[in-house]
Amino acid sequence: MNVKLIIAYDGTDLLGWQKTPYGRTVEEELLLVLERISQEPIKLQAASRTDAGVHAKGQVVNFHIKREIPDLQKFLYSVNQLLPKDIVVVDGSFVPENFHSTLDSKGKIYHYHLDWGKIQFPQDRRYSWHYPHLLNIEAMKEAALKITGEHDFSAFCNVKKNESYAHCIRNLKSIVLKEYGDKSLKIEFLGNHFLYKMVRNIVGTLVYVGSGKIKPESISSILLSQDRSQAGITAPAHGLCLYQVLYEIRAQSGV
Amino acid sequence: MNVKLIIAYDGTDLLGWQKTPYGRTVEEELLLVLERISQEPIKLQAASRTDAGVHAKGQVVNFHIKREIPDLQKFLYSVNQLLPKDIVVVDGSFVPENFHSTLDSKGKIYHYHLDWGKIQFPQDRRYSWHYPHLLNIEAMKEAALKITGEHDFSAFCNVKKNESYAHCIRNLKSIVLKEYGDKSLKIEFLGNHFLYKMVRNIVGTLVYVGSGKIKPESISSILLSQDRSQAGITAPAHGLCLYQVLYEIRAQSGV
Repeated sequence: MNVKLIIAYDGTDLLGWQKTPYGRTVEEELLLVLERISQEPIKLQAASRTDAGVHAKGQVVNFHIKREIPDLQKFLYSVNQLLPKDIVVVDGSFVPENFHSTLDSKGKIYHYHLDWGKIQFPQDRRYSWHYPHLLNIEAMKEAALKITGEHDFSAFCNVKKNESYAHCIRNLKSIVLKEYGDKSLKIEFLGNHFLYKMVRNIVGTLVYVGSGKIKPESISSILLSQDRSQAGITAPAHGLCLYQVLYEIRAQSGV
Repeated sequence: MNVKLIIAYDGTDLLGWQKTPYGRTVEEELLLVLERISQEPIKLQAASRTDAGVHAKGQVVNFHIKREIPDLQKFLYSVNQLLPKDIVVVDGSFVPENFHSTLDSKGKIYHYHLDWGKIQFPQDRRYSWHYPHLLNIEAMKEAALKITGEHDFSAFCNVKKNESYAHCIRNLKSIVLKEYGDKSLKIEFLGNHFLYKMVRNIVGTLVYVGSGKIKPESISSILLSQDRSQAGITAPAHGLCLYQVLYEIRAQSGV
């Protein structure tokens, strides 16, 4: 059987999705519980290998299991009882054997939260970047429009150890800036295939635009330069949340 | 000089406002920093002595200080630099010598958050009570109206060690229920002089009404009974936040 799970996690105390010897990861915690319940080795496929500190409300994973699961709801209830409190299975369903959470994904939605007032409420410090500088939101919106679309995103991609991309052309379908509260901003990204740290590098660049360090008109030449050093800083991980992963075929049942 | 501060804290890892030998409290952490900077003994007055685990976005404290503070903004900046990350001074101002944060308060606003869906996002687990049962929100609103007003609130008051009230008649000006997201609820309380655990006992009772354990019509007789055991459970501390304290005279300056 092929099982698809939608999972949420508070990334604050996690070293991201992928298993590492250096500390707790979502993959490791989830595997521990699934293998304990199923009593068989399991391999997880995640739609996005989120970085250390990044949160998720709609990460999608799938795994194949030999053992019969007569009641998926009960199974998922048990999984949630055993998972640490910062990881929760939101929903689950049986999917066709050939479903693959990574390869079948038709798009991903990431949300980035930031507070730009002088003070940030301590209640927001785990989920929102505090950047206490005046921001010109209109300029940021102008820059976001220029970043949207199909481009070579090399200037917005960090180099990952032991990994390289065949090319860095990606299609970023939309970037939407939504203001809320007093000087709080949510930036919503919709695209497929994001490059390493691409969202956080775009956020860092938008914030540089908002504070006047980069002009919105410079975005095109930054993209053309394919030079990471031309763009802004990498925004911190804790403002980022994998909000939703989109698929063409939806076969879901409630937890 | 008499200084008024508006402070916010994430109560998760704090044993409430008041100093205790058993662990970290807001009073203790704030005193440590204020006395370190001012180099003189300081006594803090808080508008509300919030319990262990309760949060605040608008707690108000005041203290008298002999040392001259030539630049209050710089002073508060230093305080925030030295405070632990779960406590923040949001704003501060010089107030008349006779201002008293507790006695001069004309009202307090508390917010209580709860999630009643099967699943709670781990991102909300620190600030919202997870009560995974179907709730009849209309019945809760009906009950809230009956609790609003001037009553003897003995049935909603826990007995505190070494402390008793002359009487338990209080005037609860309003209780407003606001639904948001998917099965999330914010309950806003406006009143002055709240009794010990009164808000959390009302929330516990409203939730009992919502899940059918208490009928809205029974609220009047519960109030008349003056019997704590007639009302619902005490809702957990982590859903509660002291949102704002109201005063007649406002003399504030930005941080």
